[in-house]
Amino acid sequence: MRTVAVQAKIIIDLPMISRSRIQFVMSLQRKKVRDIEKLFVIEGDKMVREYLMSGKPVRYLIAKPEFIGSIPAGLADCADETIPVTFRELAKISTLKTPHNAIAVVPVPEAESGHDIVPVGLCAALDFIQDPGNLGTIIRAAAWFGISEIICSNECVDLYNPKVIQATMGAFLNVTVRYGDMKVFLEKARKQGLPVYATLTEGEPVYDTGLTDTGVILLGNESRGISGELMQYVTTRLSIPKFTTARFGIDSLNAGMAAAIVFSEFARRGYSK
Amino acid sequence: MRTVAVQAKIIIDLPMISRSRIQFVMSLQRKKVRDIEKLFVIEGDKMVREYLMSGKPVRYLIAKPEFIGSIPAGLADCADETIPVTFRELAKISTLKTPHNAIAVVPVPEAESGHDIVPVGLCAALDFIQDPGNLGTIIRAAAWFGISEIICSNECVDLYNPKVIQATMGAFLNVTVRYGDMKVFLEKARKQGLPVYATLTEGEPVYDTGLTDTGVILLGNESRGISGELMQYVTTRLSIPKFTTARFGIDSLNAGMAAAIVFSEFARRGYSK
Repeated sequence: MRTVAVQAKIIIDLPMISRSRIQFVMSLQRKKVRDIEKLFVIEGDKMVREYLMSGKPVRYLIAKPEFIGSIPAGLADCADETIPVTFRELAKISTLKTPHNAIAVVPVPEAESGHDIVPVGLCAALDFIQDPGNLGTIIRAAAWFGISEIICSNECVDLYNPKVIQATMGAFLNVTVRYGDMKVFLEKARKQGLPVYATLTEGEPVYDTGLTDTGVILLGNESRGISGELMQYVTTRLSIPKFTTARFGIDSLNAGMAAAIVFSEFARRGYSK
Repeated sequence: MRTVAVQAKIIIDLPMISRSRIQFVMSLQRKKVRDIEKLFVIEGDKMVREYLMSGKPVRYLIAKPEFIGSIPAGLADCADETIPVTFRELAKISTLKTPHNAIAVVPVPEAESGHDIVPVGLCAALDFIQDPGNLGTIIRAAAWFGISEIICSNECVDLYNPKVIQATMGAFLNVTVRYGDMKVFLEKARKQGLPVYATLTEGEPVYDTGLTDTGVILLGNESRGISGELMQYVTTRLSIPKFTTARFGIDSLNAGMAAAIVFSEFARRGYSK
């Protein structure tokens, strides 16, 4: 019994990842480093497992031996390198308060140039969304409601920010997110005769305004709304009616919630057909 | 010119709040202390201003002199004590990465006992919502859609957690949030013949299910959903249809978004009437 206990202690404390490797993974929290290395970090058992199952390339799989042992045979081999770590090591690398059991360092997919972006089907366009949690939940809502394309203005927070990836809960696997000049993009939408729906404080109630199944849903900054220079491209002004006469604390909805409600309403129209 | 510069330096660094007071305000981040002191903290210029304007009692108004000078005459007098502070002092007290200009320490309103809770109109019931951001955004969505009553199971995160208050963006002023035994509450709803709508992964599509303007909208825990023992009270199982066939990263919607979509759908029915 004594021997077993001693062995267990050794396994738990055994360092298995170099300090420079830990520092490298941590450095990927910064956009500058991600841009140079063309790598980003996915964290959490469920998200890492789903990423592995999607068959996309993995540079490093950094995980507790229990996690590595738990995934289907062959999946860990998808990683160029699998690095077993202790919980303490994982906690060092993690951006989360309560680290999970696995982190994957994966390549940033090749991005198309902003000027090549052409509106397809029903897509969402985000003007200056700054909060990582908001971008992440918008991507999650878009994936749920079948919006497979999101155009971000260059001022939006980076998709590969760890907090964005975390908030998507894996939905980034199903939505193409591209960055570019929003004016150039909306100009193209206009040339194609596509409607551009803006969500505003003042506008037609989204519940009874005609909505099409192609077009652009334009969402603005968390506090400033949609940039003035983009308003010329808007063909329909939508708003989410407020069902209260309260005077305080009801200025607006959270950007993620507003997006989810509008996406839901577009989806409902298609659903009811 | 030199004298002016020196004076400005002195004003900026002048300590205006005692260390023990700073520690007291910071201690209110802990539920145990809030329960004893019956005080909580509101942070942010807009929220503090709206709280003052609502005419509710304020124990301490802790703010930069510029903020105190900017609010309408008489409003600062609503506080038992107004404490001007430097930015550095405010940053110490703040729970935010980027502190604002004002913090208010205010009394927790007298709570009714959980057993006195009776369902009224259309209300939301939250079972084991643990994430402060989720509770806050659910309150914000409820206020927007005219749901003025939220019942939280005793396992839910505390309303007066600073992150919850922050995420409400002031909407806590317009929604009565009460804690109690969820079984007792739902038992009462059943006795009154009120419908209990549950939002689930499997259920009737919320878009074309009959919805009433009185009843209980029951929302479950972020990962585990609604507790098994509560399902006996559910009269209608609702779900938000998924508009994708993707295999990965689309297990669920964020709890706040799901709540917002369901509240919106109840409101829309009333709106269209």
